[in-house]
Amino acid sequence: MNNEDVGKARDENITHEDDVLRIMKMRIIDSYRWKVDIIEPFSKEFGITEDEFKEILIKRLDMASLEALHARYESSKHYCIKEKIHADLKLCWLSDVMNVLTDEQTEKIKNKLAKEVLIQGKSYDEAIEDGRKDLLEYLMR
Amino acid sequence: MNNEDVGKARDENITHEDDVLRIMKMRIIDSYRWKVDIIEPFSKEFGITEDEFKEILIKRLDMASLEALHARYESSKHYCIKEKIHADLKLCWLSDVMNVLTDEQTEKIKNKLAKEVLIQGKSYDEAIEDGRKDLLEYLMR
Repeated sequence: MNNEDVGKARDENITHEDDVLRIMKMRIIDSYRWKVDIIEPFSKEFGITEDEFKEILIKRLDMASLEALHARYESSKHYCIKEKIHADLKLCWLSDVMNVLTDEQTEKIKNKLAKEVLIQGKSYDEAIEDGRKDLLEYLMR
Repeated sequence: MNNEDVGKARDENITHEDDVLRIMKMRIIDSYRWKVDIIEPFSKEFGITEDEFKEILIKRLDMASLEALHARYESSKHYCIKEKIHADLKLCWLSDVMNVLTDEQTEKIKNKLAKEVLIQGKSYDEAIEDGRKDLLEYLMR
């Protein structure tokens, strides 16, 4: 082979490797749980198609990250939903800034709401509505 | 004075001190800035009257905390609004869990939006809407 042929063969190999990697990555994120938990909600969030969101993941994450991601997603649910509750109940103000609620009290409320949403299937908005009542009860004591 | 009278005088003194303290506390939180920044929004948040929310603050916070609170509120605005943006743009998932955005990128977006809301007076919902577009732009790169 001359130099040009070597280069061409190498390019073809790289392209082939890319294709294989792409197929392997697609296999991971095409599972049912991925679709329901990650692809559907996040593509909807950004107003893009599911295929577009898949492309983002494939482009940005390597195999190892993709393989670990669904488990990470599962184990972070509780943490992330508590962060959202903290923000939506204005606990940054009430607890962190004003100190009218203790960390222990806010933890109690957040864990209760997160459980209701993640385990008992309560809607998030309803949980927040009830959480606001719990909070007020603590404050009124 | 007999013992009973001493006790009565002490009780009256305590009541008097409580009244004075209450008046002093009320003077702090009855200012215009307190009303607009804290009393109005938080009483509305909980669906209680402004007087009820004032009672909560007076009962829960001592003079020193009350005196420091409005300044704390001012200086925490940026921090708390960034926390809310983090939650509303699902950055807990996208950045902390999935790592499809770097901390530097999310900080950039959050600081930009917080500035738009706090300094330029953009509505929070509008800022979030635009933030979602910024985010998508980063992701699509």
